[in-house]
Amino acid sequence: MPQLTVRGIGVDVMVSISRPLVEELAAICQCGTDHFTVDCLNVVSVFDGQACNTNPFIEVAWFERGREIRDRVAEAITRHVRTAGVSELEIAFKVYKEDGYYIGGVPCG
Amino acid sequence: MPQLTVRGIGVDVMVSISRPLVEELAAICQCGTDHFTVDCLNVVSVFDGQACNTNPFIEVAWFERGREIRDRVAEAITRHVRTAGVSELEIAFKVYKEDGYYIGGVPCG
Amino acid sequence: MPQLTVRGIGVDVMVSISRPLVEELAAICQCGTDHFTVDCLNVVSVFDGQACNTNPFIEVAWFERGREIRDRVAEAITRHVRTAGVSELEIAFKVYKEDGYYIGGVPCG
Repeated sequence: MPQLTVRGIGVDVMVSISRPLVEELAAICQCGTDHFTVDCLNVVSVFDGQACNTNPFIEVAWFERGREIRDRVAEAITRHVRTAGVSELEIAFKVYKEDGYYIGGVPCG
Repeated sequence: MPQLTVRGIGVDVMVSISRPLVEELAAICQCGTDHFTVDCLNVVSVFDGQACNTNPFIEVAWFERGREIRDRVAEAITRHVRTAGVSELEIAFKVYKEDGYYIGGVPCG
Repeated sequence: MPQLTVRGIGVDVMVSISRPLVEELAAICQCGTDHFTVDCLNVVSVFDGQACNTNPFIEVAWFERGREIRDRVAEAITRHVRTAGVSELEIAFKVYKEDGYYIGGVPCG
């Protein structure tokens, strides 16, 4: 964690931005780059009676870090994705609680 | 948003009901149909030592709209899915907070 | 529910452990084995400018059952997955509220 789950953006795009994006996020969150995971999810989107393009969307699952860090993380993700040509992006933060997160069976809180 | 993520229901089924379903949901939520996304997720389900059919399940990610709207949204989704031949459906609402949701880098709250 | 959504662990692994794992979880949660679903999600993970292996991760979506049950569920999942050769595993619990969960259109709370 943080864990980014991506819809509607090509794997090639995420590959192209992954290094500078994660380096910047790690600096903002003050943790190592190896804390981050970026997972591209393949979905089939449907609208108005037919399959359609998937809206670019990234869910960031993490422990709560507060407004300032969250704003900066969202801004950095949006900017890197835009640089790669994806102009519209929605981001949602999903908060896991430390006492509901286990690494190797050991709770984080 | 609202964002419907669907498991265990064929894309063809969601295509067949998407227009009337989203029109009814938009009327209930009093927002445009283009606020809704319907994403079909492909998973491999496992039970009792073998792969199995996936239970029909829809997660609705949204901002909290209260009990009455939620009940009506769940009823409408269940009814449309039943009309298409899927009799068993479970629905879970996942609440995003406005200040944890960003459109184009700008927070919604 | 509980609903286990699995990333970064092969379907074959989950098949091999599914029966004893779910039987133990059902005993811990004091509910039937048929309350559990195990869904394997296919994602493409990206790190440092290239596609990479997906970190083993299981999200457990459920109604809150408290610390003791949660610890035991996490311990059992971790142990069964380790037995199948997956040494590193992170588990996150995602809590659905009873009044935001609908079975056949009827709320659970």
